[in-house]
Amino acid sequence: MKFITTPVKGMNDFLPEDMRLREHVLGLIRETYATYGFDQIETPAMEHIENLTGRQGGENEKLIFKVLKRGRELEKGMETGELADCGLRYDLTVPLARYYANNKNSLPTPLKALQMGSVWRADKPQKGRFRQFTQCDIDIIGDGSIMAEIELIAATSKMLTRIFSEVGIREFTVHINDRRILKAMAASAGFTPEQYDDVFIILDKMDKIGLEGVKESLLKKEYDPEAVESYIGLLNQITPGIKCGEFCGRIGGEYLDGRVASNMDAIMDSVSCMIDPSVRLEFDPTLVRGMSYYTGTIFEISIDGYNFSIAGGGRYDEMIGRFSNQQVPACGFSIGFERIVTILKDLNWTDEGNRKERRAFLVDERVEPGKLLEVFKLATAMREQGMIVTVQPLKKNAKFQVETLEKCGYREIRKVYSDTLLQ
Amino acid sequence: MKFITTPVKGMNDFLPEDMRLREHVLGLIRETYATYGFDQIETPAMEHIENLTGRQGGENEKLIFKVLKRGRELEKGMETGELADCGLRYDLTVPLARYYANNKNSLPTPLKALQMGSVWRADKPQKGRFRQFTQCDIDIIGDGSIMAEIELIAATSKMLTRIFSEVGIREFTVHINDRRILKAMAASAGFTPEQYDDVFIILDKMDKIGLEGVKESLLKKEYDPEAVESYIGLLNQITPGIKCGEFCGRIGGEYLDGRVASNMDAIMDSVSCMIDPSVRLEFDPTLVRGMSYYTGTIFEISIDGYNFSIAGGGRYDEMIGRFSNQQVPACGFSIGFERIVTILKDLNWTDEGNRKERRAFLVDERVEPGKLLEVFKLATAMREQGMIVTVQPLKKNAKFQVETLEKCGYREIRKVYSDTLLQ
Repeated sequence: MKFITTPVKGMNDFLPEDMRLREHVLGLIRETYATYGFDQIETPAMEHIENLTGRQGGENEKLIFKVLKRGRELEKGMETGELADCGLRYDLTVPLARYYANNKNSLPTPLKALQMGSVWRADKPQKGRFRQFTQCDIDIIGDGSIMAEIELIAATSKMLTRIFSEVGIREFTVHINDRRILKAMAASAGFTPEQYDDVFIILDKMDKIGLEGVKESLLKKEYDPEAVESYIGLLNQITPGIKCGEFCGRIGGEYLDGRVASNMDAIMDSVSCMIDPSVRLEFDPTLVRGMSYYTGTIFEISIDGYNFSIAGGGRYDEMIGRFSNQQVPACGFSIGFERIVTILKDLNWTDEGNRKERRAFLVDERVEPGKLLEVFKLATAMREQGMIVTVQPLKKNAKFQVETLEKCGYREIRKVYSDTLLQ
Repeated sequence: MKFITTPVKGMNDFLPEDMRLREHVLGLIRETYATYGFDQIETPAMEHIENLTGRQGGENEKLIFKVLKRGRELEKGMETGELADCGLRYDLTVPLARYYANNKNSLPTPLKALQMGSVWRADKPQKGRFRQFTQCDIDIIGDGSIMAEIELIAATSKMLTRIFSEVGIREFTVHINDRRILKAMAASAGFTPEQYDDVFIILDKMDKIGLEGVKESLLKKEYDPEAVESYIGLLNQITPGIKCGEFCGRIGGEYLDGRVASNMDAIMDSVSCMIDPSVRLEFDPTLVRGMSYYTGTIFEISIDGYNFSIAGGGRYDEMIGRFSNQQVPACGFSIGFERIVTILKDLNWTDEGNRKERRAFLVDERVEPGKLLEVFKLATAMREQGMIVTVQPLKKNAKFQVETLEKCGYREIRKVYSDTLLQ
């Protein structure tokens, strides 16, 4: 039988240097959120197929890797559903909702949860899109107050500052908005609730197509021209640095509970005093966020100069409780882990700064056991001092061996022959 | 549609306290092996079905979770094989062999690899046996010398000493043997090579059934009574602390290359000077190790007083190269991660000693934004000093909330009302 040496399509083998970067980033994420009182939790890779389908997963539900029932063989007239009762998780949100329902009596309230793990999507593989990739979600469950938003945004900004300052990047922008403001804007302009989702999809493209493009797209959809005119007029009033309270005043009080704006201002004030001064915090009434399950505040973080977000999230008070049939407030941030790793790799990140001293002993095969023992004694002493030490046979192609070790960060590489003096 | 709140059968949800222990152990494993120059690597959760079947996986091959081809629907007359072209990995050894063949030109030689990851087996779930569990494998590929054995045994002993000293355990025994010694013993007694495997299976039970039991079992198999007698005679000569050289001398030179014993002595001498004095190193000619792919040295580590091993491995020079059709020496250690975690949990491990200071602010809902901001400023300052701080709403059932936080290690828990003075 033939062996296939490449990984399964769309999935990756990670080399030692890949892993150093990935583990370093995971470590900083873990460490930073721990400081804010977040606890790591974990769910299995597989979920019941019933939980994965017919949910909020949207497009992702079409991409489920289904797993065959144990010991089940194909029988005549059988349907696929009878063969597979489980699937690999395609995100960490559905598992979190199940996890919370299953364990809520053993969990603290609020639960501040950090999840880092693989998800699988039977997607068409392409550059930067894989069939197995790491997701990193941070959620606060059971806190309906603005403290949840403040903690999440502050912790995530801090984490990104820590990670990216290693490659000289310190400028980020946090965009904040609220789904209720989005809806109030549309309502005050005269759109009907059924039109909101389509209007938001168009608004979401504003950074690419501009205000004129938004207007054109809305008119092409044959919406009431007066509503479009009024909507564009509202968007026209967005000036850089505009305060939420000021902007919401223009929408009109009948469309929006006044507490939305005052909460937004309170969130921004508190976050401002918690983050690095080089992180900009911006109320952005054009921020949409794709998923329809958001119910309140939404947010996104982008690196200045890059054309995409690297973290995004919001409040979704109606989803977590669905498994247990009760209302449970929830607010979360999803970190684009693979994107972060790709950027760091592109910017030639090295662990040079964090690296322990690395030494190597390359031992000739003719070295007698007594001398070998001396090498190991020396290596042990050096390891106890905190150094990274490797002891390995001296290869015939010693030049290549030394170069490879140097590339891995080994600095003092000693060849040991029978007559080498070790001190 | 009904939601199922329990995890998939045989798989686990991990609570925050479970994760603290698991991550702590993973961290110590990662850190210790790094000191010995091991690099972390990772392969995807899925492998081609061809790679998983018809290999050295033995019984495990029957336990593969097969994954349905993307978008493949059931058609008349189709066989299961056409439906599933991938499966979840059931160990980390088959993926390692594929990984090495796929990446060998980008990898250092020797490769000192650390793998930590989930594996899946569609096994009958029972106490302590799960369908998804973490495996932890350490391998040196491309080093045919005894340096590989020495580094592996020394690093693993060190790692276990570090982990278990936290619960007061320091006494381990490392059992070492060589498959070639096992074979020479059987050959010199008069068994035929076809009988070896069965003889070893019986010998493997000696710690349970004793020497008399071994004799009985061998006679019951109707082996030549003279061979049995001679074999038992040899086993009878095993005295505590017997040296390998001495024991091998009794087997007879015609059955065993003299270098096997001298290498064993050299391994033991070097390891002795590298490990904690409370770790015993024992040449054990009755050590068998199940898997037939071992070709040389084999080893196992047990905690004194416990009736099972927590790590085991050996040299397997003929397996890694199979994917690339070339001989590649390899030697590895597999750590019983789940077993280690279970023991620590049973012994009430806590992270008390390693824990950072934990503080909590419980904020009453009537507190105004200005005061809330003060709380967050204070929390930020404390976090910058390295403390773990959580800010959350004061719940109606404050007593329960405080108790829960105390259980999580929070020590200074402050309730903040509108009139609370913060300094």
